[in-house]
Amino acid sequence: MTSKTYAGNYFEDFTVGQELVHTSPRTVTVGDAALYTALYGARFALTSGETFAASMGMERMPLDPLLVFHTVFGKTVPEVSLNAVANLGYAACRFTAPVFPGDTLAARSEIVGIKANRDGKTGVVYVHSTGTNQHGDVVLDYVRWVMVRKRDESSPAPETLIPQLPTVVAAADLVVPPGLTGADYDIALAGSPFLWDDYEVGERIDHVDGMTIEEAEHMTATRLWHNTAKVHFNQFVERDGRFGRRIVYGGHLISIARALSHNGLANAQTILAINAGTHCNPTFAGDTVHAWSEVLERFDLPGRTDVGALRTRLVATKDLPCTNFPLRDESGTYLPNVVLDLDLTLLVPRR
Amino acid sequence: MTSKTYAGNYFEDFTVGQELVHTSPRTVTVGDAALYTALYGARFALTSGETFAASMGMERMPLDPLLVFHTVFGKTVPEVSLNAVANLGYAACRFTAPVFPGDTLAARSEIVGIKANRDGKTGVVYVHSTGTNQHGDVVLDYVRWVMVRKRDESSPAPETLIPQLPTVVAAADLVVPPGLTGADYDIALAGSPFLWDDYEVGERIDHVDGMTIEEAEHMTATRLWHNTAKVHFNQFVERDGRFGRRIVYGGHLISIARALSHNGLANAQTILAINAGTHCNPTFAGDTVHAWSEVLERFDLPGRTDVGALRTRLVATKDLPCTNFPLRDESGTYLPNVVLDLDLTLLVPRR
Amino acid sequence: MTSKTYAGNYFEDFTVGQELVHTSPRTVTVGDAALYTALYGARFALTSGETFAASMGMERMPLDPLLVFHTVFGKTVPEVSLNAVANLGYAACRFTAPVFPGDTLAARSEIVGIKANRDGKTGVVYVHSTGTNQHGDVVLDYVRWVMVRKRDESSPAPETLIPQLPTVVAAADLVVPPGLTGADYDIALAGSPFLWDDYEVGERIDHVDGMTIEEAEHMTATRLWHNTAKVHFNQFVERDGRFGRRIVYGGHLISIARALSHNGLANAQTILAINAGTHCNPTFAGDTVHAWSEVLERFDLPGRTDVGALRTRLVATKDLPCTNFPLRDESGTYLPNVVLDLDLTLLVPRR
Repeated sequence: MTSKTYAGNYFEDFTVGQELVHTSPRTVTVGDAALYTALYGARFALTSGETFAASMGMERMPLDPLLVFHTVFGKTVPEVSLNAVANLGYAACRFTAPVFPGDTLAARSEIVGIKANRDGKTGVVYVHSTGTNQHGDVVLDYVRWVMVRKRDESSPAPETLIPQLPTVVAAADLVVPPGLTGADYDIALAGSPFLWDDYEVGERIDHVDGMTIEEAEHMTATRLWHNTAKVHFNQFVERDGRFGRRIVYGGHLISIARALSHNGLANAQTILAINAGTHCNPTFAGDTVHAWSEVLERFDLPGRTDVGALRTRLVATKDLPCTNFPLRDESGTYLPNVVLDLDLTLLVPRR
Repeated sequence: MTSKTYAGNYFEDFTVGQELVHTSPRTVTVGDAALYTALYGARFALTSGETFAASMGMERMPLDPLLVFHTVFGKTVPEVSLNAVANLGYAACRFTAPVFPGDTLAARSEIVGIKANRDGKTGVVYVHSTGTNQHGDVVLDYVRWVMVRKRDESSPAPETLIPQLPTVVAAADLVVPPGLTGADYDIALAGSPFLWDDYEVGERIDHVDGMTIEEAEHMTATRLWHNTAKVHFNQFVERDGRFGRRIVYGGHLISIARALSHNGLANAQTILAINAGTHCNPTFAGDTVHAWSEVLERFDLPGRTDVGALRTRLVATKDLPCTNFPLRDESGTYLPNVVLDLDLTLLVPRR
Repeated sequence: MTSKTYAGNYFEDFTVGQELVHTSPRTVTVGDAALYTALYGARFALTSGETFAASMGMERMPLDPLLVFHTVFGKTVPEVSLNAVANLGYAACRFTAPVFPGDTLAARSEIVGIKANRDGKTGVVYVHSTGTNQHGDVVLDYVRWVMVRKRDESSPAPETLIPQLPTVVAAADLVVPPGLTGADYDIALAGSPFLWDDYEVGERIDHVDGMTIEEAEHMTATRLWHNTAKVHFNQFVERDGRFGRRIVYGGHLISIARALSHNGLANAQTILAINAGTHCNPTFAGDTVHAWSEVLERFDLPGRTDVGALRTRLVATKDLPCTNFPLRDESGTYLPNVVLDLDLTLLVPRR
């Protein structure tokens, strides 16, 4: 009798060009939006109130782009990363259409690169994933690469292919949500007087506040995204594992850091792209997350004078306030308390 | 002055034939659906995405049947089990109509059996409960029996009546949700290639994954169902109680086990009946739940060739992986780490 | 370069007559309603089921008034109490229009009183806050006074102005939700036979049940209200703070106590006013909350014979059952386990 249980793909199961259909498309609703607020405390005005969204030209208030990211990412876990050792990086992540309550998100992936590791036990798989809504419109696409276990250490290495990936999503490839305008922007309601014009390249912002993570919270979030990665949920197994603890889903850190960044970047109303990202160190329940940002680039969006793009580094730490903008040690290694280094392109209204 | 506080019914308050109206009908929404996903991580495609529900012929995506079960069950607690010592069993539980977001669920019960215990302190009450929607349609009905404290140990025993209860809900009594079809079923989106035809009686499935329970999670769930049973919420009292801890609502285990069963039974899209169920041992925060299933029966649904019924045993454990399908010891007693033994009838599309 | 981070207002930043626009209007939905139920277990029939709300004359089921209170209160935190030492009191809080799922709540405040403290380090600010919906209707207004830190101890004291505040909202100022009637009131579905007529002034009610607070729960709630007060979230800082712990948002206690009060006041379907309130002692995760009520007044609502008003004291304790109605010691000081003393005006149907 065939085993009915799905064990996930191992390194040998992936080939370049392979397409994966991810299971259980998910309808995201105002229920998810409320949970997102409750889990992260995100207060960006565009995704908090219908009236503000309307004042920015939107027919309806969109869902937080990271809610969309987590939902699509979660969909990819069973086929992509159930046997992953680590999530190594992201590139070329674009939010290509707003998602509204009631939309149903489906996900597909294509394997775009592969490389066996020298240890013979693992390999790296590059995956291009796409999220679509019920109309078939692409709402998100990104590449991530993961280190995956081999089923059999003796299996031969595939031909290495490392895809060409942009370090930054080009301005021409960014999509401003249709209808969105920065023309009659209300800074009082948005919560900050600082617009695109007011940020300078090299400027660093300590987001000041800290948020302590609880087991119930990161598991609640991670289940909400249908993310089935075992390390987040099973203390019985993890107590004998690498860290003796459940590991917090890296995306949970992304959302906490983005929510904290409201204090200093309140007008960065939406994320246009995640250019790159590294989960530098693991995070556990009990850790308190702080965050800081650095403005890496400030550029025009094609044809727009009402809104512009800020490219920022968003760094999150555990149990380490960000007054001194911690990042790497002298050797270039991430400091042990730095948990996230994200490269974002944010949309900010202009003067 | 009359005490305004409701103390719940004691054994003496129940008589066969008595009808109970349960309070505070509850409107269930997409908010409840999101919380259900967040609490359990359930990924069955029929209740995850509107598009998949539509592909199975449903006009709208229904709510998870266990969300309906918990809501109706919770409604019955104040009048039925506030003074219960134990929830002894379930029988003849049928999901008779799908419930959609926005529906309002009300509950009524009839006492259908009674038996005083020899200890003179408690008795068993058999309760037939019915959940209806705002149109008056019955959406759920079931019998459960509970051991309830007597108010006064000297009160006389009522005449014993133990109701005839089916061990299994008959095929003719099962209700397939109106409109539902397995005709154009998409196994790729559903997450498993194994259909009704592929399961064999006697087959056992280790659902592999484990889920650790947190206090905040089981209390959040239990409050969501308006369940007021004291043992779940009050650590100040429970620290001096039988276990020194709050006890997890048994239904929380049912939902965790059902969600875990997705890995191995992903095409068991809905529950038609709960034939029987035992909460074998108490569960506490910190316990990690694993689950396994055994196929007990495979049978046709009347007039249907697109979908069939699988009768399964669904067993949940605490801090014990299910590789070896743990259940009872040699004497027939449930093993101490077995917490749930459920007899389900599941709807599965056919080839 | 100007710091982009918002540090909140200090005592010197407030002047009488000053108006504050609060940021990020928030759309409240059935998602928030489900979370409110999950966090507090509130079971008042009017806000539990659409059918019951309709039977009381409402076109749609309103949201719990405390959900509205917390949302508006949370909006005021960044500009009013980010640098507060304590939330000293409430007065004249009126619920002036029902709020429905989909409404967007915005908040404004006016400074109506000020007084420097003798210690030279802090002062008291009296703030009149107003919540409005997307139509501009006022849904809530209240005064609270908070002790706020000075930025600079040497800054001169402003002229003291202490506003005249009513100790009780007058009957003529109370607003019964439009359309609401007690004419065909269903006590069986509401959960208690005791109507307005059955309560006597001086009557005290032990609400019996207890609810233990978890870190994940109070933080989840507090984030849901966009409340950014630092002491609730940051264990890294608080472990070296006054209590060594995160402090639970006082409003969390209000909602727990109100939910517990269902047992004894199930027909008190809505809150018309919060006349006064004191957070007597701080609460922490792990504390178990019990509550009791005292009927302070019973009065007619102008022109109404179907519903009347009960003015009650609602007291919450931590780790102390309320059998003996604990409140103050012989010197008049709140007992250390008393955490909340609230003066409410409740709407209750009449015979």
